[in-house]
Amino acid sequence: MPSPDEFALIRSWTAGRQSAERLALAGVKTGIGDDAAVVSPEQGHDLLLAMDTMVEEIHFLPETMEDADIGYKALAANVSDIAAMGGKPLHALISVSVPSAWGPERMASLYDGFYECADQYGIAVVGGDTTVSRRHLVVAVTLTGAVPSGRAVTRSGASPDEIVFVTGPVGLSAGGLYGMLPPGEGGRVPPFPPERLVRAHRKPVPSVSAGRILADEGWATSLNDVSDGLASEAWEIAESSGVTLVLHENRLPLSGELAAYASACRMDPLEWMLYGGEDYVLLGTAERRNAEAIQTRFRAEGLPFFVIGETESGSPGVYLDSQDPGRARKPIAKRGYNHFTKG
Amino acid sequence: MPSPDEFALIRSWTAGRQSAERLALAGVKTGIGDDAAVVSPEQGHDLLLAMDTMVEEIHFLPETMEDADIGYKALAANVSDIAAMGGKPLHALISVSVPSAWGPERMASLYDGFYECADQYGIAVVGGDTTVSRRHLVVAVTLTGAVPSGRAVTRSGASPDEIVFVTGPVGLSAGGLYGMLPPGEGGRVPPFPPERLVRAHRKPVPSVSAGRILADEGWATSLNDVSDGLASEAWEIAESSGVTLVLHENRLPLSGELAAYASACRMDPLEWMLYGGEDYVLLGTAERRNAEAIQTRFRAEGLPFFVIGETESGSPGVYLDSQDPGRARKPIAKRGYNHFTKG
Repeated sequence: MPSPDEFALIRSWTAGRQSAERLALAGVKTGIGDDAAVVSPEQGHDLLLAMDTMVEEIHFLPETMEDADIGYKALAANVSDIAAMGGKPLHALISVSVPSAWGPERMASLYDGFYECADQYGIAVVGGDTTVSRRHLVVAVTLTGAVPSGRAVTRSGASPDEIVFVTGPVGLSAGGLYGMLPPGEGGRVPPFPPERLVRAHRKPVPSVSAGRILADEGWATSLNDVSDGLASEAWEIAESSGVTLVLHENRLPLSGELAAYASACRMDPLEWMLYGGEDYVLLGTAERRNAEAIQTRFRAEGLPFFVIGETESGSPGVYLDSQDPGRARKPIAKRGYNHFTKG
Repeated sequence: MPSPDEFALIRSWTAGRQSAERLALAGVKTGIGDDAAVVSPEQGHDLLLAMDTMVEEIHFLPETMEDADIGYKALAANVSDIAAMGGKPLHALISVSVPSAWGPERMASLYDGFYECADQYGIAVVGGDTTVSRRHLVVAVTLTGAVPSGRAVTRSGASPDEIVFVTGPVGLSAGGLYGMLPPGEGGRVPPFPPERLVRAHRKPVPSVSAGRILADEGWATSLNDVSDGLASEAWEIAESSGVTLVLHENRLPLSGELAAYASACRMDPLEWMLYGGEDYVLLGTAERRNAEAIQTRFRAEGLPFFVIGETESGSPGVYLDSQDPGRARKPIAKRGYNHFTKG
């Protein structure tokens, strides 16, 4: 067990960092410091439970992420999971296994990142632990959320002849990562990516408001967050729901900055958009008759919304309709992206 | 991301392992396989949230634990945290970061251990993830629980002139660990420990029934589980509640097997009992007027209950009253045990 001094140091990173109001708003009766946290569940709501782990060199490289970014992103990835069920994030538990070579300053930065994200999304941090690891940082985060009873949106509710949408641009995180990776053997060094791509990789912005609207109004028939890439998430919906998804290349939201950066790197941005992952926008389906209402509401709220395709009956699969009207649709592979090798 | 084959392998360890009844009893609407689990909170109950991490070589050694034991114990440690609040364990999320050298058989055994413990305590496993680590196994477990609203028992409720109790013997796990450690440099090899000590180390039995009775009846004024050792947990109650705890050496529950084994090893069993830890029994306080009712009820339920001391007013501290009536009480150090060095 840690020494009394180590306990005091750990407490300085983790305890007393959130206001009584923040904790009360999240229904916290007992927070950090006892065997378990005690919280009051919200009346008329279901409880959501998500857990995501980030391992150094597997999920992130120190070369592309500041310590504070690692904390921020580990929590944000869980926020995105709650958003993908249509929920409001509430309580976080944070487990950090840290190499003994890390000094207190690095730990403080890591926890600053957790708390910055927690404050951003109104999350109460109520528990977890800090342990030593032999070599690599491992961060596991559990996040609870609430959704009105029976309104949680799974992956399996899509039907044929619905629209397929995303709640923001894709591929930015992969483009940013590409440009920040250390050069491989004999590799070219690409130009440093524009700030927007760097931020997309380091500090993703989960679609919490979009998810809550889609669930509360009963508009989304299926919903996934784009963590493993648009292709992979589309496949999950296709397989869980038993439908075919057809995406249209010319409707995929390609940001101008991504297009310009890909061109400077002589890369195809479509690869990043389909297989890049870590975009943390939402991919979902909705009935056609609700498309206009959704678009009107999202516009009023200032939230992006892109219809990128439609569902069809047939065996589970995902296809891309080319911009060229003469070409046939082509199947999209069920794969993610090898994050840490340059193409 | 894992390949489709790897996904299928992971699912074989984690999915479809619990009956629909088990999941329904725990209020699970959506379990493993979506972005987050969906569960219905229990009416009239507060929600408990605990998270504990076990790191290879820091919290356990492969020499003393089978793979299935690691899974069992990682979940049991969390069950004990829920018990220490007076709660009923409900939903587990399990994060495993596993060295790539582990084959599928070892992973299957690890998950067998998780599910054996889950089934033992009626817990629904609803999420988590499986990732690769570079060298060491890291297991992080989150467990939810339910306790009747307002009945959760913290560490801070003890007052002067109350009884101090434990819900089972202490020191067995430390004795078992001692006997299974690989010999140090030039070290003696102790006799292999008796089966009961080995089991106490590998498959601890958290005091869930005891905790629920103590909370439901409002009997416990404070409660901790003995994870870091009796001394350390007593200190936590003393400091959180602002009282002095006096333990009586002759009332500490010393099992005959532990006494005999300590004698064979020429060790002092008191060291294991006070500083050993990982006993996962409960240490708590209660008003004197309830002592008889508690003892009668525990006897009727077949549950152990030992009054080991009392609280006094005064600055926070923990003392041991010796068996020898002529000797003064001596202060108990606020420390745990260095698990992996032989004394």
